[in-house]
Amino acid sequence: MSLPVKPGDIVEAAGRIAPWINRTPVLTCGTLDRMSGASLFFKCENFQKAGAFKARGAMNAVLSLSEEEAKKGVATHSSGNHAAALSLAAAKRGIPAYVVMPSNAPPVKVAAVRGYGGLITFCEPTLEARETGLAAVIRETGASTVHPYDDRRVVAGQGTAAMELLEDHGDLDAIAAPVGGGGLLSGTSIAAGAKGRRRAVYGCEPRNADDALRSFRSGKLVPSVNPDTIADGLRTSLCPLTLSIIMENVEDIVTVSEDEIVAAMRLVFERMKIIIEPSSAVAVAAALSGRMKIEGKRVGIIISGGNVDTSALPW
Amino acid sequence: MSLPVKPGDIVEAAGRIAPWINRTPVLTCGTLDRMSGASLFFKCENFQKAGAFKARGAMNAVLSLSEEEAKKGVATHSSGNHAAALSLAAAKRGIPAYVVMPSNAPPVKVAAVRGYGGLITFCEPTLEARETGLAAVIRETGASTVHPYDDRRVVAGQGTAAMELLEDHGDLDAIAAPVGGGGLLSGTSIAAGAKGRRRAVYGCEPRNADDALRSFRSGKLVPSVNPDTIADGLRTSLCPLTLSIIMENVEDIVTVSEDEIVAAMRLVFERMKIIIEPSSAVAVAAALSGRMKIEGKRVGIIISGGNVDTSALPW
Repeated sequence: MSLPVKPGDIVEAAGRIAPWINRTPVLTCGTLDRMSGASLFFKCENFQKAGAFKARGAMNAVLSLSEEEAKKGVATHSSGNHAAALSLAAAKRGIPAYVVMPSNAPPVKVAAVRGYGGLITFCEPTLEARETGLAAVIRETGASTVHPYDDRRVVAGQGTAAMELLEDHGDLDAIAAPVGGGGLLSGTSIAAGAKGRRRAVYGCEPRNADDALRSFRSGKLVPSVNPDTIADGLRTSLCPLTLSIIMENVEDIVTVSEDEIVAAMRLVFERMKIIIEPSSAVAVAAALSGRMKIEGKRVGIIISGGNVDTSALPW
Repeated sequence: MSLPVKPGDIVEAAGRIAPWINRTPVLTCGTLDRMSGASLFFKCENFQKAGAFKARGAMNAVLSLSEEEAKKGVATHSSGNHAAALSLAAAKRGIPAYVVMPSNAPPVKVAAVRGYGGLITFCEPTLEARETGLAAVIRETGASTVHPYDDRRVVAGQGTAAMELLEDHGDLDAIAAPVGGGGLLSGTSIAAGAKGRRRAVYGCEPRNADDALRSFRSGKLVPSVNPDTIADGLRTSLCPLTLSIIMENVEDIVTVSEDEIVAAMRLVFERMKIIIEPSSAVAVAAALSGRMKIEGKRVGIIISGGNVDTSALPW
């Protein structure tokens, strides 16, 4: 099958975004190795600009625009990391970012978007109002929409994290990444195959938001319905683009409980001394669960981000 | 003046301990650079084994023992990071570590020492009982005492953190480190002079435990009396060894308030996504205070450790 995003797209994205993003470090931890029975290599996108891997895809999309397109700006509707990442990316290119946010968005998310210079339009907190609001903004400004994951430029950008990880540790047997909308997982899976060597790629998902698992098993999109998980970054559902890539490239999708997510998050705080968000802890929990076949293997884990309210930790 | 610990001692210590400790990364942060008006380079000893720079000095002391001495083990009285670090270092050499701890030591500290195989003797929570207890252990076992900072091997070991920092970033204009007993600061100051180039070294201290500042200003040991600071690692007082080195090598000692410590700690959590203990936040707060002369300079900051109870953060 010919995939809509190719390894070469990731290589190009990496060259394009390199001056604008952080080359994040890869950390290891003896305690987590012992607990998982594997050698784990943590790609720390919590140290990425704007605190998450989302800066990669957003930057690639913004830099891929023609001069003509770029000067009209970019637009999205989002209340999460993508809105901040897109605002940051637009600021780096010196163009406007229009962000439609629900009126009940957390003040900390609003502040992050404003901090990067994003131009916010508030709307009612419904998907319909968000889409109507975005359409109106685009009509007025001519801005280009950048979807958080249903976008080939974004998928290619997200894949650069795994590409860097494999540049640093080419001998990995497997890579695990959390899956929400599937941009990170599909990009990761393309990067993992880029060297022509077969590596297992695992998606990691909260059991309480297991739409990706259901979609993967059935081959059909099964959207999330009101998912109740602490991993706020993983409440979104796959789209046809990401499902097609994941069906083709991903070994399996592993789910974890809310208790496992919180325990993994705390373990990383206390033993690795780094701050990760619950979505990232999902991949760590999967590595500790025994439900991925990684015993004795060398496994990359994408730590997707570190945007968490430390005044309200779940322990 | 001929100092009791020389740059060559640090070079030797570095070679001795290299196989047993982590070469910790140096991180940077655009936000903190903007806030401080300087370029800051954070040497992350929170990622060190046992979670603090203390592993360096303890390891150097343990590896410096003769075979004859070593087989009788090492001993200390401590309820802090040094006890865990010494237990770890002894375990690496395969010798016993005897640790005298007050009966009211926090369970988490007791667990850390036990986790590294330290042999604990509990005593009443007074300095006298600790010293009596330690003397009794040494009488029975013939173990060698390793003091947390009043020990040239320990000071040389602690200096290896700054040595590594300068290997990675040789063009620093200044280095700042927290000061409690003075082992880290004095080791750092010797390493900073090792290249024959004049670099300013600053000690950073809680205003509520400013014995080092008073001692530095007067040239005489002024011990702490019941210091009330969140920076639990900095409640100890200098000793003649560390004061003599600090008097000779250190540019100035800067103090910060408790509010400044907490604000700096939270800022590092939220912007750098790493976990640091309050003692480390003292050096960050000093860099942000405007009370060090670092405007426009390149400044190393020793992040001393990351052992903090994340279930009871001070915000």
